[in-house]
Amino acid sequence: MKDYTIAIDAMGGDFGPEVTVPAALSVLAAHPQLKLILVGDSPSLERVLAAQRSVSNRLTIQHASQQVSMNELPSQALRTKKDSSMRIAINLVKEGAAKACVSAGNTGALMATARFVLKTLPGVDRPAIVATFPTAIEGKVVRMLDLGANVDSCADHLYQFAIMGSLLVSAIDGIEAPKIALLNIGQEEIKGNDQVKQTAQLLSESKAIHYYGYIEGDQIFSGNVDVVVCDGFVGNVALKSMEGAAKLIVRISKEIFKRHWFTQLLGLIAYPVMRQVKKRIDPARHNGASLLGLQGIVIKSHGGADVLAFTQAIYQALAEIEHDIPQQIREEVGALLEEHQQ
Amino acid sequence: MKDYTIAIDAMGGDFGPEVTVPAALSVLAAHPQLKLILVGDSPSLERVLAAQRSVSNRLTIQHASQQVSMNELPSQALRTKKDSSMRIAINLVKEGAAKACVSAGNTGALMATARFVLKTLPGVDRPAIVATFPTAIEGKVVRMLDLGANVDSCADHLYQFAIMGSLLVSAIDGIEAPKIALLNIGQEEIKGNDQVKQTAQLLSESKAIHYYGYIEGDQIFSGNVDVVVCDGFVGNVALKSMEGAAKLIVRISKEIFKRHWFTQLLGLIAYPVMRQVKKRIDPARHNGASLLGLQGIVIKSHGGADVLAFTQAIYQALAEIEHDIPQQIREEVGALLEEHQQ
Repeated sequence: MKDYTIAIDAMGGDFGPEVTVPAALSVLAAHPQLKLILVGDSPSLERVLAAQRSVSNRLTIQHASQQVSMNELPSQALRTKKDSSMRIAINLVKEGAAKACVSAGNTGALMATARFVLKTLPGVDRPAIVATFPTAIEGKVVRMLDLGANVDSCADHLYQFAIMGSLLVSAIDGIEAPKIALLNIGQEEIKGNDQVKQTAQLLSESKAIHYYGYIEGDQIFSGNVDVVVCDGFVGNVALKSMEGAAKLIVRISKEIFKRHWFTQLLGLIAYPVMRQVKKRIDPARHNGASLLGLQGIVIKSHGGADVLAFTQAIYQALAEIEHDIPQQIREEVGALLEEHQQ
Repeated sequence: MKDYTIAIDAMGGDFGPEVTVPAALSVLAAHPQLKLILVGDSPSLERVLAAQRSVSNRLTIQHASQQVSMNELPSQALRTKKDSSMRIAINLVKEGAAKACVSAGNTGALMATARFVLKTLPGVDRPAIVATFPTAIEGKVVRMLDLGANVDSCADHLYQFAIMGSLLVSAIDGIEAPKIALLNIGQEEIKGNDQVKQTAQLLSESKAIHYYGYIEGDQIFSGNVDVVVCDGFVGNVALKSMEGAAKLIVRISKEIFKRHWFTQLLGLIAYPVMRQVKKRIDPARHNGASLLGLQGIVIKSHGGADVLAFTQAIYQALAEIEHDIPQQIREEVGALLEEHQQ
């Protein structure tokens, strides 16, 4: 029987145990084979646990005396936070005591620590952050990588991201030949920088993936492709810019609805509809970005995740354990390396 | 008295003369010192003009036998479209017959042609595309550059973009020391790629601008800064991604409002509010991106611009003539070059 033990950095994120503990209990109740290790300040965790209505003998606590703060430098966290909840959760994966770890903590520190402790898989030069987004087609999602694990990636790195993204989607979503697109500033062949052009060359020649071609930023959510590949700098800027645009729309809508008693009333009546809109596009519904390419499963939850969103991140870890994503990447990348050497 | 003659590529954009001619007449009616030259297929222009209610003796037509299509390669347009409405409109600026030109045509072709015909100002290595966006603060706008004139810019280029953006904002918006931010994937000093770090160094040492520091994509619209500087590849992806996010929200909202007779009705009642939201964030309201750094004023309108949006682009040209932006850039960059050589 498969080992479904997940280590949770229970102190990470904006809300720490207040979110991670109830989320853990909720996932345990829904998944009878799962075991969870809550890593963090033992007294705090005990206190939050005591206040919950449910208990589980599949839940253990592992004490950690430190925690990584949200604005700590990755290098500093790596050097000075060896007994942090984040570090110990990752160590548990390294030691085989857990099959995956989930953290809502500092992204840079998580990336640096996971990379340092777990190392990348053979043939993978750099890990990448991949996240899932809704599309214009209901029920269809798109995955995008890299979202900021790296800056200054070269074409070989982007090619590896494409391979890993394709594998992830075919394993988890059951799509046989996922369509892989490359993010660019135009759809014509001559557009783009050298990095993108060289990557397009590699992708179009590869038999390992189904290359769709270039797409522009406004097509990310079209639902036409399964994976969008880009440099981490570009991906992170795109992601944050989209967040910014969405927030601006919400903020201005609220302002305008609030201006007059009639529009205030209208806003109240329209609220359930707005909630449905929010639900369809809410990133929390797909919370849980993967650090792909490591010798172990590491899931990053949004720092501001609530209980429901954090459970999604745990489910993402479960899905990756179920399909043994690191092993699949190891095999695929290994085969490609052999092919390349012949 | 200042010469306010503007050449208009009347055939450019998705709608050509149907949009450009009424927009031209509307701006002429509002601005008694303005003269416009409509460049394009003379019979087509005469026909559209005849159907309009207003006329003006400050409007002339300059015939052009060709036009650049929206998906034509810039190199091809440059080589084979020497009698296109776009090329002739730019030539008129070069020859001094017009002080600015406005086109809703193919961005790549416009950029390549303008650069080839007009050349960059001394000390400016590369022109940049700058556009204006609404912010969360009503009445406050933000300008962002480069939005795709270049890919693979180096720190020196980004520094020049910052200088030009700062000049544009202080001249047109009357802001004395505009706050210049650099787009990055984090606000901490250690974040980012080499390009961004080197640029930050140049910007923080410069006396010519007021450097705000790094901002992330979700802060572009915060209203905290006046100018956002970035590489053209990154800027273009960010811009299109924001467009994509906004479209997704609108599309899903419409879908959900349409689902039920009650929400349909609600949608109808809420429509005027939605229109106000749209008006606040509609990019058309700020239509008219500048190709900064050239020896002449060239304004790019959105291809899908309607009459109102196209008039905004003409007004942008007028504002840049009024403040003689190319001359100001020439002086400022010249002074910096001298300072540098000493």
